[in-house]
Amino acid sequence: MKLATLANASPDGQLVVVSADLTRYASAGGVAPHLQAALDQWDVAAPKLAELYRRLNEGDIAGKPFEPEAARAPLPRAYQWIDGAGYLSHLERVRTAKGSKDAELQDQRPLMYQGASDSLAGPRDNIILPEDNLAPDFEAEIAVITGPVPMGVDHETAAASIRLITICNDVSFRRLVADDLQGGFGFFHAKPATSFAPIVATPDEFGDAWSSSRLHLKIKSFVNGTLYGQPNAGADVAFDFADLIVAAARTRELGCGTIIGSGTVANAHDNLLPVRGEEPGFSCIVEARTAEKLVKGKASTPFLKAGDRVHILLEDESGNSPVGDINQMVVAHGAE
Amino acid sequence: MKLATLANASPDGQLVVVSADLTRYASAGGVAPHLQAALDQWDVAAPKLAELYRRLNEGDIAGKPFEPEAARAPLPRAYQWIDGAGYLSHLERVRTAKGSKDAELQDQRPLMYQGASDSLAGPRDNIILPEDNLAPDFEAEIAVITGPVPMGVDHETAAASIRLITICNDVSFRRLVADDLQGGFGFFHAKPATSFAPIVATPDEFGDAWSSSRLHLKIKSFVNGTLYGQPNAGADVAFDFADLIVAAARTRELGCGTIIGSGTVANAHDNLLPVRGEEPGFSCIVEARTAEKLVKGKASTPFLKAGDRVHILLEDESGNSPVGDINQMVVAHGAE
Repeated sequence: MKLATLANASPDGQLVVVSADLTRYASAGGVAPHLQAALDQWDVAAPKLAELYRRLNEGDIAGKPFEPEAARAPLPRAYQWIDGAGYLSHLERVRTAKGSKDAELQDQRPLMYQGASDSLAGPRDNIILPEDNLAPDFEAEIAVITGPVPMGVDHETAAASIRLITICNDVSFRRLVADDLQGGFGFFHAKPATSFAPIVATPDEFGDAWSSSRLHLKIKSFVNGTLYGQPNAGADVAFDFADLIVAAARTRELGCGTIIGSGTVANAHDNLLPVRGEEPGFSCIVEARTAEKLVKGKASTPFLKAGDRVHILLEDESGNSPVGDINQMVVAHGAE
Repeated sequence: MKLATLANASPDGQLVVVSADLTRYASAGGVAPHLQAALDQWDVAAPKLAELYRRLNEGDIAGKPFEPEAARAPLPRAYQWIDGAGYLSHLERVRTAKGSKDAELQDQRPLMYQGASDSLAGPRDNIILPEDNLAPDFEAEIAVITGPVPMGVDHETAAASIRLITICNDVSFRRLVADDLQGGFGFFHAKPATSFAPIVATPDEFGDAWSSSRLHLKIKSFVNGTLYGQPNAGADVAFDFADLIVAAARTRELGCGTIIGSGTVANAHDNLLPVRGEEPGFSCIVEARTAEKLVKGKASTPFLKAGDRVHILLEDESGNSPVGDINQMVVAHGAE
């Protein structure tokens, strides 16, 4: 089934079921007021939501037109947002750019950081620039939402804890990354509100494309209409979602409704921008710039600036995005 | 007023009002089911809670006996937990111990890290050791809960956003701190569930002891009954809570119900353990060990081990703790 959260007077929004083709929705208020409440009682709520979804798809419920503009993040505020680093190609490309003193890649255990989850952005929310010259960048990722996960979870249980799948944009201020790392306390100011696609879908919605805790679909990123990346999220995966969950639960349990990001999706290749034909390209700007520096001695792809538009979506066999798309404009603080 | 959260069938627990002397409580279910719900509509809820508090204190409501054993963390799950570093004496002492390559102290802007907020521990919950030899440590801190804070907030508005005050134990696995820092993504595995005192109190409850966004009270820490520290949280403050909030909101808004930690409370001094007379001592073990290494060439105070008990409380003029106490036993995972 497919779910979304529409804006209402509550900070958590209103839970709705969305038709498979994303054209219509029906309120799920009779099952749970918001997505976290449904997750909290998933064994009871999920069958009821699935029944609503079936009836909506079959036309038994007419529903109302679904407008992504009215959607908030599926969880507008969550109790936990953890971003992993599942794709080592991304790390390899950005390590130098970040000025890391650590030459060795973390190829034994996945790196992850604790992100802010109190104010997650919707698919059409602006990316707000609090200051000039922050070198704003996008990061296109797959994200999952879990049920409760016990401390020291095994791989199989971790895989089974994945309830919902979507995509996100882990917005990053590159100029603050070095500051944050220098402090030694990890990312903080460099990571403003992460944004999410309008739809979260259960794993069965992806058919064979979801297997082994990874999503075998292309994730496409555009800046101002120009394709920057289209890597396959199922390829070159060093750590799948079950691996990330196992690692995250090493020293503590994970609460119900924890969101886990895959890390910036990256396939191994030596290409530059522009993307030609089926080349994977990049799911963030800093990788493209690092490749340019290596090959041409100088980075030419600019970071984002006010007025730019970032567009991120999945592409399934039929060419559609099963979770809708993220389409955000970059805006200076105070001008939004 | 003083509030607490008692265990019930809900993941958020039940909001109660507690008498000023912490002996009795009355359900606040008629105002809000749980603390986050009260915070979400604070302008409406706070006057009603204050009225309940007045009636409970005056004996107009009999109430029931308040047992800290039944209390959960005031917010058993929160949308945000940020820990600052307000006391530079702590940083000075632990920098070497953490193997930081960064010799310069962050004395211009406060360091802070994004902590896990999905499963916060109650005042009597065990500290669970997931593995052997993690060098478990406590960190005694002041914590505040805020209302919504806009991006780029000024100092005065930040100060006014503080709604509730308590203390917490930022449990740390010192052996994993270096691993986490080496990865460059900040604390993650080194910081399991932070625990909180049973009571959160509004600033007015502290009288003159709360001023300039800092709490001028001693915070006392004991391990197995031995006093380890009693620094004054209002002294040697490099960054007060308003400073920490301003810094946290530099690049993003903070959601309603954000919890901010002061960092390990530390006064400047050259003493060692044991604490003699009015000496401040230490609010964590690693500081005591670092002082021992410097003076004696070797650390002698051991980290925590299974069976140990950590006791943390505030001390007001009358010798009582206005927010109750944290009293946790250290237990091996699987043995709890």
